[in-house]
Amino acid sequence: MATSETPTRGYTATKDQLGTRLRRIEGQVRGIERMVEDDRYCIDILTQISAIQAALDKVALGLLDGHVRHCVAEGSQEGKSEMMSTELMAAVGRLMRRG
Amino acid sequence: MATSETPTRGYTATKDQLGTRLRRIEGQVRGIERMVEDDRYCIDILTQISAIQAALDKVALGLLDGHVRHCVAEGSQEGKSEMMSTELMAAVGRLMRRG
Amino acid sequence: MATSETPTRGYTATKDQLGTRLRRIEGQVRGIERMVEDDRYCIDILTQISAIQAALDKVALGLLDGHVRHCVAEGSQEGKSEMMSTELMAAVGRLMRRG
Amino acid sequence: MATSETPTRGYTATKDQLGTRLRRIEGQVRGIERMVEDDRYCIDILTQISAIQAALDKVALGLLDGHVRHCVAEGSQEGKSEMMSTELMAAVGRLMRRG
Repeated sequence: MATSETPTRGYTATKDQLGTRLRRIEGQVRGIERMVEDDRYCIDILTQISAIQAALDKVALGLLDGHVRHCVAEGSQEGKSEMMSTELMAAVGRLMRRG
Repeated sequence: MATSETPTRGYTATKDQLGTRLRRIEGQVRGIERMVEDDRYCIDILTQISAIQAALDKVALGLLDGHVRHCVAEGSQEGKSEMMSTELMAAVGRLMRRG
Repeated sequence: MATSETPTRGYTATKDQLGTRLRRIEGQVRGIERMVEDDRYCIDILTQISAIQAALDKVALGLLDGHVRHCVAEGSQEGKSEMMSTELMAAVGRLMRRG
Repeated sequence: MATSETPTRGYTATKDQLGTRLRRIEGQVRGIERMVEDDRYCIDILTQISAIQAALDKVALGLLDGHVRHCVAEGSQEGKSEMMSTELMAAVGRLMRRG
């Protein structure tokens, strides 16, 4: 049975890092457009889509990480912890494809 | 383009509700064991597995909801917001299957 | 850019293997029921739920693997490839949480 | 308990439809780049990322649908059903984030 462990700050990302990742994702999407256009093998295109989904999840986790740290550090002081928690959970539910 | 919206507390669950859901999930898993044993049609078993995954996600979101509310409301006061945020993000990453 | 590769039969599972995995999953669900009952730390319970979901996906991929092999090998000969493909895709969509 | 049902061909997509969807996704990714650049609210960006991921999954299911229909209809006749099944399952596993 797993026990509680405190991982390092794996998802934290700077604005520059996010921008770089997003420009790369944009290029990957264009690459898939060309693959579809050129009738490339379906399985290879699906591999690329899975890679983009992983990259998008990484961007999402990077953004969420910063937001969570802000909410946990500041939420209660600003007297709006309830709303912050609700919209945070809604975002997590959508990222889990249960939104 | 989507705008920020504040949803209701859709994921909040009591301990009793979580217990009831988990006992139902346990029964569903036993049902799948019987289906495999009886050589039931594969697609029907897969449908049941998808239903269990959805039910487990609902339990996870219910637990996470309570934890997030606690962290956002109390985190900064207890001076451990950094560790709370890190382990929360690790849990979210795992639920997104990126852990 | 990824290229097409032919992996080994990683997901294939026998009926016995599926039964063993499902009984273990049933035990893991009971473990979570106790953890909730005992007010165990939320993050630890979430870790267990993620583990169960990975195990269930493994069972699903094992079942799907056998079904796909059957469909690809026999589908066209039985003159029902259209229906087989449609219900197969619906099952995959549900497993991707897009059903 | 769910029973076997035969859904309609929900995922089938033409090459034109896939191209149109991918160009729209490319635009959505550029939109997110601007949102990050402009320091837009994190939750709004996450909502957009979830929308892109749903759109990418739809493209993936459209591509997979055509491939599955081809494999089920033609696989056994070409004497390569084994390899087709293996690479198909590997693609499905990656789309389920279990690759």
